[in-house]
Amino acid sequence: MREVDLFVIGAGSGGTRAARISAGHGARVMVAEEDRIGGTCVIRGCVPKKLYVYASRFADDMADAAAFGWTVGMPSFDWPMLRDAVAAEVTRLSGLYRKGLNGAGVEIVEERAVVAGPGLVRLVRSGETIKAHHILVATGGHPVLEPIIPGGHLGITSNEVFHLRTLPKRMAVVGGGYIALEFACVFARLGVEITLIHRGDNVLRGFDEDIRMRLRDGLARSGMTLKLGQTITRIDEGQHGVRHLTLQDGTTLDVDAVLVATGRRANTKGLGLETAGIALNPDGSIPVDAASQTICPTIYAVGDVTNRVNLTPVAIREGHAVADSLFGGKPWTVKHYPIATAVFTTPEIGTIGLSEQDAVKVGHAVTVFDTQFRPMRATMTGREDRTYMKLVVDPDTDKVLGAHMLGPDAGEIIQSLGVAVTMGATKADFDRTIALHPSAAEEFVTMRSPRKG
Amino acid sequence: MREVDLFVIGAGSGGTRAARISAGHGARVMVAEEDRIGGTCVIRGCVPKKLYVYASRFADDMADAAAFGWTVGMPSFDWPMLRDAVAAEVTRLSGLYRKGLNGAGVEIVEERAVVAGPGLVRLVRSGETIKAHHILVATGGHPVLEPIIPGGHLGITSNEVFHLRTLPKRMAVVGGGYIALEFACVFARLGVEITLIHRGDNVLRGFDEDIRMRLRDGLARSGMTLKLGQTITRIDEGQHGVRHLTLQDGTTLDVDAVLVATGRRANTKGLGLETAGIALNPDGSIPVDAASQTICPTIYAVGDVTNRVNLTPVAIREGHAVADSLFGGKPWTVKHYPIATAVFTTPEIGTIGLSEQDAVKVGHAVTVFDTQFRPMRATMTGREDRTYMKLVVDPDTDKVLGAHMLGPDAGEIIQSLGVAVTMGATKADFDRTIALHPSAAEEFVTMRSPRKG
Repeated sequence: MREVDLFVIGAGSGGTRAARISAGHGARVMVAEEDRIGGTCVIRGCVPKKLYVYASRFADDMADAAAFGWTVGMPSFDWPMLRDAVAAEVTRLSGLYRKGLNGAGVEIVEERAVVAGPGLVRLVRSGETIKAHHILVATGGHPVLEPIIPGGHLGITSNEVFHLRTLPKRMAVVGGGYIALEFACVFARLGVEITLIHRGDNVLRGFDEDIRMRLRDGLARSGMTLKLGQTITRIDEGQHGVRHLTLQDGTTLDVDAVLVATGRRANTKGLGLETAGIALNPDGSIPVDAASQTICPTIYAVGDVTNRVNLTPVAIREGHAVADSLFGGKPWTVKHYPIATAVFTTPEIGTIGLSEQDAVKVGHAVTVFDTQFRPMRATMTGREDRTYMKLVVDPDTDKVLGAHMLGPDAGEIIQSLGVAVTMGATKADFDRTIALHPSAAEEFVTMRSPRKG
Repeated sequence: MREVDLFVIGAGSGGTRAARISAGHGARVMVAEEDRIGGTCVIRGCVPKKLYVYASRFADDMADAAAFGWTVGMPSFDWPMLRDAVAAEVTRLSGLYRKGLNGAGVEIVEERAVVAGPGLVRLVRSGETIKAHHILVATGGHPVLEPIIPGGHLGITSNEVFHLRTLPKRMAVVGGGYIALEFACVFARLGVEITLIHRGDNVLRGFDEDIRMRLRDGLARSGMTLKLGQTITRIDEGQHGVRHLTLQDGTTLDVDAVLVATGRRANTKGLGLETAGIALNPDGSIPVDAASQTICPTIYAVGDVTNRVNLTPVAIREGHAVADSLFGGKPWTVKHYPIATAVFTTPEIGTIGLSEQDAVKVGHAVTVFDTQFRPMRATMTGREDRTYMKLVVDPDTDKVLGAHMLGPDAGEIIQSLGVAVTMGATKADFDRTIALHPSAAEEFVTMRSPRKG
């Protein structure tokens, strides 16, 4: 029986990092992947999504250029060209991941692997059983076509959207979370007539209310139709692939594609975890402690399969911590707060720390500093979009509890402010930082007066 | 004789801020401006420059769009349209400055004012003398056509560049500082054949050497001709406005315009400072102490006229400090370090704190963390440009002494990192900040291994 120090199930962000670092510490490591090396982020998530976002924003750039003296012919867009170019880049990156694993001395097993008991992994196709001193489950998650409705199978998820044969003329996007919104914004700018259907009364639940409100307005300005407080009750197939939607209020809508982005679920089905005594959470994810250890002491789990904070850099960090803890002689755990995140809608959102509402909820007194302004580029184009920035401050400690932004470069700016917020920056620290002019970010360090209650 | 608490000479960034804040504190304030309200930044500096930068970058955007599935007709560029649109925006902003002063109750005097002794200001055109309990000199600086050479008057400065009647086909840009480089990049992308002539062996003296080297390469890639270690010895006028340049090495060059950006000088000529016993520095600037006070106790000076750190936000802060100190009952002084700055070349530069070379010079041990990568957008376009990021760390204290970046969004990123650097962030603070993916800025918090000596 072959034997390894660490068997990683799943070569996504978390698994790959854990495998490489463990091998670097001298462990014998094997990683199994039943799909493509790279996982959600590289293959069907962050990376191809952001490339689509870039593509979509050229539409605005070409429209804006006229205000700066440029005359541009009517641009046309070729969906298969973008789709295939992005797919090629994804393939290149997947190859780099493979190379990284090989270079670190990790053995890659390209088939499905399941847990066969504590210290045992079974390769499903070949039937081989491997002895593994430690197992790391990093199988990620997958989008679900939910809620279950008649004709629900006629919808597609964010997995299939990267392979659409043709660009739909009309698309319904179902959901109000970041995945639904990012794709809605992308396809709207690529010329698709978008109807966003979301059961909630506003998009991006959990984000700061000032951001949510302004994002909703921004979405509406981009030309899509928002149907909030609304759900689809059935989908019927019409001629030429048309999807005939019936909504909760009885109205109907014909579109060419329905993108359902209402939720994701952990990839734990048939994974054999019960053979190691591991019972799943009600949502199907794997319960772990702060060290990413399951109830079975030799089995760990990181990333989306644990449904903690489902973000690539968090999975990477969790995987890194497991590797260092097991084989590096320096155990550490991931602090899951604060985490800077972006939503790559247009307008873009960046956020770190507590929303105003959550700050109040957990008992903080709150002083709000915020500002809204026309981005410099838009002073020329006349675009109505406004950049919005907000600091949530605890007046008792002067500590910045949260920083939120909507507007161009929000992701880059919030990531960079994240260092200060992670350090526990006070408003006074922001104030004494000298501005860089002209920039958008300088507005974060020049907000002098709190918003009047 | 009319009497005020504060007379401000010059309604630029520093003077306007000082006037408004002082008036807010209840002082009677008068501000004199002989040119347009707004000063260098608004009228002929940061603002119109950055609008030109936006215009120039559309050239790259339109070229890049093809890699993302867009077909764009051959774009054409209309210089008068850009020039006039920018001029209109400048006029709008100047109006906002005026409105801000009016709203604060500041009296604006639109003529030249000079010091007529301690506590006295003379309005040159009207001949009126005003009694001023305090005088703030905020007259800024101006570009100079230097060194003096035969035909030097045939060159233009950054003042005139905003009013060019037609777009030159060929332009020589003289200088290696940020103003020369920013305009060289702008006009190169607007289709002008640029020759950059600079006496030094590399551009951007004083910046980190790794940044300088990569910027030079980036300039060359943008198609301009770099003539380093070279100067112009004479300019002759040819037919149809052609400028015939003779260089130090005897070679000649015909261009349609020569932009000279070799230096700036404080606006102190004929300002009457000697009537208050104030002697100028050898460079023509006004000597002041940390509180921006001159040797004459009732006369202060802020901004470029003092030639300390010639940046808009610094002038604003100096003006603000003078106002608070004189009339707000809360004296404070400006800390001139660290200051985040950007150079809006393409590729853009952002920097805060010490360069590696300066850190060594002042006695620090230095560990360098740096990374170079292809920006995500460029993975699709095949552009050769690489983003470069560098942290200069003191290994004894782990403190980040300097952060430097070359690449898209460098200004926004460095401004935002500036909060942490101002707080005295350590490399460990950067390390424990969780990444935001996919972004460029995340590379600043994921540099794990120092550069090998």
